[in-house]
This record gives sequence, structure tokens and C-alpha cells, in this order.
Amino acid sequence: MLYFENDYTEGACPEVLEALVKTNMESLGTYGFDSYSASAKEKIKTACKCPDAEIYFLTGGTQTNKTVIDAVLRKYEGVIAAASGHIALHEAGAIESAGHKVITLPQKDGKLKAEDAETYLRDFYNDDSHDHMVIPGMMYISHPTEYGTLYTKKELEDLSTVSKKYNIPLFLDGARLGYGLMAEGTDVTLPDIAKYCDVFYIGGTKVGALCGEAVVFTKKAPTQFFTSIKQNGALLAKGRLNGVQFDRLFTDNLYLKISENAIKTAKKLKKAFKEKGYRFFIDSPTNQIFIVLENSKMETLKKNIIFSFWEKFDDNHTVVRFATSWATKEENIDELIKLL
Amino acid sequence: MLYFENDYTEGACPEVLEALVKTNMESLGTYGFDSYSASAKEKIKTACKCPDAEIYFLTGGTQTNKTVIDAVLRKYEGVIAAASGHIALHEAGAIESAGHKVITLPQKDGKLKAEDAETYLRDFYNDDSHDHMVIPGMMYISHPTEYGTLYTKKELEDLSTVSKKYNIPLFLDGARLGYGLMAEGTDVTLPDIAKYCDVFYIGGTKVGALCGEAVVFTKKAPTQFFTSIKQNGALLAKGRLNGVQFDRLFTDNLYLKISENAIKTAKKLKKAFKEKGYRFFIDSPTNQIFIVLENSKMETLKKNIIFSFWEKFDDNHTVVRFATSWATKEENIDELIKLL
Amino acid sequence: MLYFENDYTEGACPEVLEALVKTNMESLGTYGFDSYSASAKEKIKTACKCPDAEIYFLTGGTQTNKTVIDAVLRKYEGVIAAASGHIALHEAGAIESAGHKVITLPQKDGKLKAEDAETYLRDFYNDDSHDHMVIPGMMYISHPTEYGTLYTKKELEDLSTVSKKYNIPLFLDGARLGYGLMAEGTDVTLPDIAKYCDVFYIGGTKVGALCGEAVVFTKKAPTQFFTSIKQNGALLAKGRLNGVQFDRLFTDNLYLKISENAIKTAKKLKKAFKEKGYRFFIDSPTNQIFIVLENSKMETLKKNIIFSFWEKFDDNHTVVRFATSWATKEENIDELIKLL
Amino acid sequence: MLYFENDYTEGACPEVLEALVKTNMESLGTYGFDSYSASAKEKIKTACKCPDAEIYFLTGGTQTNKTVIDAVLRKYEGVIAAASGHIALHEAGAIESAGHKVITLPQKDGKLKAEDAETYLRDFYNDDSHDHMVIPGMMYISHPTEYGTLYTKKELEDLSTVSKKYNIPLFLDGARLGYGLMAEGTDVTLPDIAKYCDVFYIGGTKVGALCGEAVVFTKKAPTQFFTSIKQNGALLAKGRLNGVQFDRLFTDNLYLKISENAIKTAKKLKKAFKEKGYRFFIDSPTNQIFIVLENSKMETLKKNIIFSFWEKFDDNHTVVRFATSWATKEENIDELIKLL
Repeated sequence: MLYFENDYTEGACPEVLEALVKTNMESLGTYGFDSYSASAKEKIKTACKCPDAEIYFLTGGTQTNKTVIDAVLRKYEGVIAAASGHIALHEAGAIESAGHKVITLPQKDGKLKAEDAETYLRDFYNDDSHDHMVIPGMMYISHPTEYGTLYTKKELEDLSTVSKKYNIPLFLDGARLGYGLMAEGTDVTLPDIAKYCDVFYIGGTKVGALCGEAVVFTKKAPTQFFTSIKQNGALLAKGRLNGVQFDRLFTDNLYLKISENAIKTAKKLKKAFKEKGYRFFIDSPTNQIFIVLENSKMETLKKNIIFSFWEKFDDNHTVVRFATSWATKEENIDELIKLL
Repeated sequence: MLYFENDYTEGACPEVLEALVKTNMESLGTYGFDSYSASAKEKIKTACKCPDAEIYFLTGGTQTNKTVIDAVLRKYEGVIAAASGHIALHEAGAIESAGHKVITLPQKDGKLKAEDAETYLRDFYNDDSHDHMVIPGMMYISHPTEYGTLYTKKELEDLSTVSKKYNIPLFLDGARLGYGLMAEGTDVTLPDIAKYCDVFYIGGTKVGALCGEAVVFTKKAPTQFFTSIKQNGALLAKGRLNGVQFDRLFTDNLYLKISENAIKTAKKLKKAFKEKGYRFFIDSPTNQIFIVLENSKMETLKKNIIFSFWEKFDDNHTVVRFATSWATKEENIDELIKLL
Repeated sequence: MLYFENDYTEGACPEVLEALVKTNMESLGTYGFDSYSASAKEKIKTACKCPDAEIYFLTGGTQTNKTVIDAVLRKYEGVIAAASGHIALHEAGAIESAGHKVITLPQKDGKLKAEDAETYLRDFYNDDSHDHMVIPGMMYISHPTEYGTLYTKKELEDLSTVSKKYNIPLFLDGARLGYGLMAEGTDVTLPDIAKYCDVFYIGGTKVGALCGEAVVFTKKAPTQFFTSIKQNGALLAKGRLNGVQFDRLFTDNLYLKISENAIKTAKKLKKAFKEKGYRFFIDSPTNQIFIVLENSKMETLKKNIIFSFWEKFDDNHTVVRFATSWATKEENIDELIKLL
Repeated sequence: MLYFENDYTEGACPEVLEALVKTNMESLGTYGFDSYSASAKEKIKTACKCPDAEIYFLTGGTQTNKTVIDAVLRKYEGVIAAASGHIALHEAGAIESAGHKVITLPQKDGKLKAEDAETYLRDFYNDDSHDHMVIPGMMYISHPTEYGTLYTKKELEDLSTVSKKYNIPLFLDGARLGYGLMAEGTDVTLPDIAKYCDVFYIGGTKVGALCGEAVVFTKKAPTQFFTSIKQNGALLAKGRLNGVQFDRLFTDNLYLKISENAIKTAKKLKKAFKEKGYRFFIDSPTNQIFIVLENSKMETLKKNIIFSFWEKFDDNHTVVRFATSWATKEENIDELIKLL
């Protein structure tokens, strides 16, 4: 069986695991107050060129989105997102369970467009009855998006401009950030993200760690954010688990190096799909490839390959996803290509 | 100034007010345990031909929607509604503040179509990852809708069929129910609504009462619904306020009689709009008339008439609403028509 | 049957009802934007000697407590209250349902003592692990308390001092405020309350109105408080219902005048209880009288008098409550005394 | 520096870490659908002698308490706990943030007594106004308790009897369960816990794992519990992280074997404290030792030993905690004893 279902089927990348092993019996501070967490934060600040950032480590994407959004918003506020956004569709109502509406705007290639956000905000404040409605209090984007697409630097800048104009923070979900940063043709760097966003997170779970996401508040964290983490059930007693992993990921550029493997293998795979005449659902420059398959073909491929159902395309076709990762071996790509 | 802004600019209809005056100094049970509340419930059950119904009185539409939906749903469930539904747009996130997502489907003339709901539900359960998503736990419709339109008996039956098939209750928001029941051409009666819905409410605030909505659970109320009302801040110490009003509204058919006035006056007004060549935004058979006005015309009319901004149509046009009610006087309609 | 169960068994006091009748057919602004609400707010500001106050009308005590506390607190904050406080015991978890812990301190005659609050707050911040705990964000008191007792001016000042020291607002629940203000021997006036509290409410439901509580933010209301009201299901479409009632209650000193009747009749009744050798559970200077009855005696009295079960005293005795109100007639007191 | 601050200052116990290393590059199912999670569940069922149990792995104590309580309770329900319970004091209001009141009863040596719970429940249902109050929907205990004390089998049975009588489930927080099971003199086994509780969790974070708690529903899990986990941000994409660890902990009796070390070292330490005349705050049979120190003595000890502030005792004394764990070395105990 070949696994291309997602980018979290293996454990940690070897260097990260090694760091866990090496530090295992050290007696360390708890709840994030350990030397590795402190060191990781410094390294991330440096990588972001954002010396004043405040950084916290959480343990998964939905948990991070819920905790950050809930801590930033007031009770009467909601968060603007593309209709395809992870918080809108695939987090089991986590944001709403914390009391906040996800205000969805149409997605364009999985992205929230600055002009759509601006139009929504302008019309909202022009609507006499807006005080009876959910007040938009944040903009949420993901990079890469749910469809593996990427914002350009200009698009981020435009979103940032809208967010400043309406005084609502811009939050970037970077569950797969490494793959976005290493994609061919992107002009967006980590310091750009730190520059344009008020808060974002650097995903570890899908990029080489066993678990862990690094939340970066580029200006200032919300008051008592530590307590919000605890209240959300997101505080690890052994905070070292995240700290050690991120400390290693941000040593010797490891985070980007391992991300590169996913891009390289995806590129090879995309080339094969193209050559074999497969139909792409969307042109994704990162590690996720979305293909429209005839249902019968899908059943055939399923016998040897594990990939993801994405969404129904029409009665006879389905959109499926093949994902590569830091762990994908070139030999498996070759095997997969033979089966296509 | 002529008031056509909405259907709640006056107090109570005279008969209802008189009942409040007459009973004012009686010492009565509290929290809804008074004789008038009891009597009102019996009369409503009779009017609904639903002897087993369980009835509670609440005080406003958003409060009722929030309390009912929160009591019926489990934490992991959301409520399906048309994108134009009141709970989706104009309740300041009340449903989300209780933890529940409003799952929006496209509206057709303000209505949720049974086929759209069924498609959504079928696709939902066919999606491998649906356990990561908000589980649909209820269907919400309003009758009349936000656009003053009405479901047919067949449409209600179809929605009921879908709701039974997927075992999720059907909830009808009847904030303006009287106006729906008295509309020309409707084939939907109060017993029909009781037959097809698991829970609905009969609006008082917009139909002759100072305040008050009668929630009818046609089968069985949720366990401890009284406590849920209290927890939602919706329990009136002087429950008589709602009880006395509904007791009177459901005596001598008053609820429907006063509703008729809104329909009659709206009909006359619609005729005038048509004759004068106004452009209708939608064909509404009830007491709300939606007109597309050139912005300059809108400004002119505003000088003498108070009506509602509804939504932007395009850069030069706006959708506005004129509403009649139980209190609308024919002479005011005549005056308004002169100004058009 | 004689009704002494509580202070809300009748409707509105005649003058208030008359105002509702008189204004009933006027076309007025909605959602609180009517001339009577505006006028009532001015009169209340004057009565409070607090010209900068921001005032909102809500519809019941639990609703008001929930809406105010939720709008003032951040998600990680809780509210300090006496263990006997209404929000701690008798609001069906309304505060918790909005996400906030009620932090209970021992009650002394129903009151929260400034020294207890200060000790709690000092110890809290001295506890190394306080960031893992609910951050105290507000102090809640009621005046009169659940046991009908009253704070002295000095006690309010001391609570205010603690609240300023720890920068957490002081909130006073005045569901029965009129009865407190008219009690014999109290040195607390409405302007005193406005001076020492950051927010309080003037109860209408239990003091002459059909419903309605006036929330007074003495400095500044929370941002978007109107939206919070809507989100909590607490916004009346016909805001006039509260506005007209409070406008009348605060005309010609009516609120205090009608409160006086409750105090006068309670005084007479207390005298009789004393003379007949009844055992008082607590010495309450307002309109609620708490008596410890032998259970057999309780059963006897129940035959002709409706009073409230308050709490179990011991296996053979029960604490019961007799309440007077603006509506209590002296002849009923005389009848009651005969039955004792 | 000697670390006795808590039982989570080291990483994983070597065998558990080795299992993570060994399985690291295997491609496994996600979100808990991996072979190690499946195997771990079977082993736990066997250890509990509870073949019908349904088991889920979560990642921390507060997260587990919040997720379980929220999934089991209805919105109008609260959870009964000892006033010293972790959910009552040290979870930053996590339970309340999910909408539920923690109903606190007096603790006796950190324990909730069956008779106190029964009295509360009986009085609650005898109180006429209980429908205005939070309905008790669950009983929460921890074993060991916050003070390291243990329930006897009889005490568990009695609590279970009360829980059955009032039809509210009994939930046992076993964050340190291993240390409880290995304590000298306890008559409570894992199958006993499975027998008397409706749901409990076996703590991994404090007993040999990097993270992870195994939730055991002894009868049936709540409907859609998987979705509740996701909604609470508690679903690990790499569920293997918990699965592999618990699979190892429940192989060859490892969980109990490593727990024994904590008990053995604590025993030695307690003996030394006694011999040196230290004052015990409470007699705890598990791995936590609570000592009352004069403040000056505390400052002296702090220079070489890290222990926990527990609570203020009086103006001159403080309660502190020394904790041993699976990782405590006898040589460190010897060093510590020399410093006392």
C-alpha cells in the first residue's frame, strides 16, 4: 500500500525525534517555562525578523485556531474567512462552540480576497442594522490554503491594509507553512508574514513534528493568553514536548529543509499526472495535489494507493487529494507513478 | 410623518391592552404558573388541533430562537437555515453565542428548499470526514420568511419528510405567523404547521402584543426546558404578561382577525406601487413590501415617510421595505399613496 | 387566600399601567430608540446625580445579570459574589452558560464583605499558580441582598475601594432597589450607589412595573453593549414597553413612593410576628421577612396564606419568606396577622 | 538543584520513548485510527476487566475533564465536585467556559463524600425552586485527590450508589491513577474503578508518558464523542502519539511498575520528614507529600530544592508539596534528606 493520504502519516522527522530522545531525562520547567521553549522562541523571533513577537506553543491546528480566535475576539465579534476555510468547514464548530460566528465570504482558489473583505466591511458599516449583526473582529486566512494555493506578497499586503483600515487583526493559519514557504515561485517569506499579520502560527504537526504549533503574536499577545490556553484545555504540562521540537526545527534551518522534500516530490508527481493526462481540480504549488477522477478510476487506484476523498465533483467524478510531506520518499513517488 | 418602517411601532392591539388592564391587580402565580397562561395554552392547543403540544411563552424572537435551538441541539450540532434566515444574519450571533453553527444553504425567495436540505444532508453523510464537521441537528425556517414569502403546504410536507428521514427536528419561526396565515392564496393553516413541525412559535410582538412569543412543541418539549428558559435569561417573573396577552389573542379568533388588517392594507399599497410603476424586489404575499428605489427617489420619499433600508441593490438603487401591521390605518395608506 | 409569596404577584402599579395605556397607539421608534426611553434615561441620570451615565433597559433580573456580566468580563474572567448571591444559586447557571465562573465567598447576612473580597484577591495574586485559575474580573453584590439586608454607605465605599485597588468593576444588582432605598435607617441613596458602583440596575419587575430593569453604567458602557443585548436575546423590539414604564416610575418620585408601601406594610407585619413570638431567621429591614417555622405550624399556615419556602432549617423547622410589595394592602396585613 | 516540584519534570519513561522511536517512520492511520491505538484500547479493556468499554485518547488533564464533562452534560446541567477539586480550582474555568457550573461540596481530606452528595441531591430535589437552579448532572472525583489521598473501595461503591439513585454518572479523574493503584494499603484496583465509575481516565502525562490520557467509558461513550473531541480542539492529527505510548504503558504491566517507583521513593522521603520532626499537612499515601513549613525554613530549603507552593497556612507558615514520580532516583531522595 502506498500512503499519500495526508502529510501526517509518519511520526517526527529524525532530527526532531533525536532531540526529544536526547533531552528526555532532563528535569525541566513545566507549562512552557523550560529552556528549550525559551530557546525556540528566540530562534523563531530571529527567523521572523520580529524581535518583539510573543510566542506560545500549542498542540494542534483546531486547538490553535479556537484558542487564538477566542482570546482575540470580544463576545459580540465574529471572524471573517473564506467559505472554504478550515475553521468554516472542518473544525466541528470549534469556533462557534467558543461563541463566535465564522462570517464566510466566497473563496477564490481557496483564498480570501482583500477586495471581497473590504466590500463586505464597507457594506456592513453602511447597513443601518449592523448593530443587530455579528461585528467582524478578525480576518482569518490560511497559507497554504485548503486547496494548497498561496497568497502573493501583494495579496497579503492588501489584506493587511484592509485589516488596518477597519482595525481588525489579520490571523494566518500556517498549519502547512513550511510547504508554502518552500513552494516554487512564491514571493512570500516568513518575515513578510510577520510583517503583514497580527498573529499567525507555524505548523509543526504537518511539518516534521509529532505535534505542535507555534503561535506568533507579532505585536502583543492578548492579556492573560496563558490563562486562555489553560481554559481551552490547550496547556501541556510537559510543554517541553513542543519546545524541544520547535527548538530543533528552527536550528540549522531544519524546518525549511524538510519542507523542501515535500515540494520536490510533489513537483515530480504533478509532472507525472500531467503527462498521463489527469485532470487537475486546481493548480496547487505546494504539497497537496487535487485531481478530478472518474469514480471507476478512483476505485481502481484505491486498491494500491491511499489518498483522500476531497469533495464530490459531479455524479461520475470525485475530487481526490494526494499529499506529499517531509517524509515522502522518492521511491514511493516512482511506485505511485507506475500505478497511475 | 408616516410610519411604515416595521410592524412594531405601536403598542398592543386594544383588546389585548384591555385584558392587561382588566387583570392587572389580580394576584397570580408567577413564572408562567398563572391561570391565564394555562388558559392561553389550552386555546392554542385547540387552535393547532394538537392536544399533546407543550407550550411555553417567551418574550422576543431572537430570545426564542436562541433558547429553543440551544435546548434542542447537542453541543456538537448545528442548525440548517436559508442564508437569508433571521438566525443567520440578524440575531447578532445569538445562536453561535450558545455554541451552535448556523449551517447556511442558498435561499430561494427567502425559503429553504427541501431538496437543498436533502442534498446537503446526503452529501454530508457521504463525506468521509463528516465526523470532523458540525453535525446537522435541526432545520430552521421562517413563515413568513425574511422576504415576506410563504411556504406551501407541499413545501412544508417535503421539509418534514427530509427532517424525519434524517431524524432532525423541523423548527418554524413564526414571528409574523398571523400575517402568513391570513395571506391570500396560502394553503397553510395553523394545524398544518403543527402537523409538519416539531416545534414552532407563534409571534406576538409583531402581531398585536406588547411582547411575547408562544413556543409550541408539537410532540414533547426538551427535558428541563423551563430551566433552559431561566438559564437563557428568558423567564419572566410576571409570566402573566405573556399569558394574559396570548389568552386574549386566542379568544374569539383575535389573532387572525387583527392579522387580516395588515394583509388588506398591504394589498392596497401593493396595488398602488404597481400602478405607479414601482419595481418590486420580490413578490411578497404578506405584510412586507420590498421595493427597489433609485437612491435619489429614496431620499425624496424619506422626507415624509419612514420605511426600512433593506439591502443595497446596486450603486444607484436600494431595496427598501414598507410594512403594514394590525395597527395600520387605511387613511395612512391613502396618504402614503399620494406621496408615491 | 392571602398572597405573601413574593413581590411580583400583581401587574403594574396603576400609574405605570396608565402610562402604557395612554401612549399605546403612538408610533414610536423601536429597540429602545423611542422618546419615552430617552426621557426615562434623562430622569434616571438626574435621580442618580450622574449626568454621564449610560443607561439601557432590559427585561428581567437574570437576563440583566447575564448580559451585563458577560459584556463586562473577558472570557478568562469570573465574578466574585457572596455564596448566597442570586447569580450563584438561583439563575440556573446563566452566568456559567455565558462562560464565566461565579467565584463564591462566604456571605455575612447575605452580604459580600469588602475584607473578604480583599483577602481573596490578595491571596489570589500571591498564589504562584493563579494564572491557572479564573481571574477575578468583577464584584457582584445585591442591594437589598437575597436576605433582604442592606449595605451601609461605608460598606459600599469599602467595596468600591477594593474594586478600584484591583481594577475590577463593582456591579450592584438592584432587583428590589426601591425597597432598599426606602428602608428605615439606611444611609444609602441612589446617588451613593451611582458613586460607588461601576454598573448597577434599578429593578422594575419587583417594584411597580410589568417588567423591566434599568441598567446604569456610571462611567461608560462596554463597547457595542447594544449588540451584546441583542446577542443575549434581551433586546425588545418594542423597547417602549420598558421606556414608558421607567419614564413614569421616575416621574414625580413614583418609584420611591410606591416602594414606601412595601416598607410600611412589612414593618407592621414584623411587629406582629415579634409580638406573637415568632422566630426571625434574620433581621431584614426591607420588604422580605424570613421566619423559622416549625414544620407542623408551616402546614397550618399554608391553608390560608401563600408564602415561600426559603430553605430547610433543620429536620423539624423550615425558613419561610413573607414578602410585601408596592401592591400590598394594609387590610391584607391585618387579615394575615389574625391568622398568625 | 533538586527537583521535587511535581511529577512531570522529565520526558517519557525510557520504554515508552523507545516505542515512539521504534514506530516513528511507520505510515499509520490518523486521528486515532492507527493500529497502536487499537491495540492499546484492547489492553486497557483487559486491564480494566471491562470488555465493553469505549476508549479515547486525549492529551492533558484539563482538556480531558472539559471534553468529557461537556459531552456528557446537557446545557442546563452542572457537575458536583469537592471544593478542592481540580476542575473547581485549577483549570482556569475550563468547565464554565463550556457552559457548566461546578457545584462544590465541602471536601474531606480532598474527597467528595457520598453522604454529602446524597444530602445535597436530596435537599436539591426537595427545594421547590430547584428548576431555577443548575441541575446536577454528574459527580466528579479524583483518585488520587488533589491532596494525594485515596478513596476506599467502599467509598467508591457508596458514591456509585448515589450516582445510580439519582441517575447521574460518576466520573473519576485519574491524572495520577497509577500512583493511586500502587499505594500501600489501598483496596482499589483498576477493575474496581471500571466497575463503579461510568467514565474515568487513566493519566499518562504524570505517569510515564510525554502526554496523553486514556478516557474509559465503561458503558457507552456519548453520541458523536469523536466530534466533541474535535470541537474541543483535543483531536491529535497524529493520534499515534498517544496510542503508541499507551500501548507500551499497558504492555508487561509497565504502567503499574513505573508507578511503584514513585510510591517507594515517597515512602522513604515521608519517613525522613517524620524522623526530622516535620509537620505534615495531611497524611497522603501516594506520591505527593504536603508539609507545613515555617516561612523562613521554606526560604532556606528553596536554595537547593525546587518544591511547590501549595497554599498559605497562616501568616508564618506555608503548605508546600514535594512530589516523587516514576523518574525519581533514590540517590536524589538521599540528597534531599540530607538537606532537610
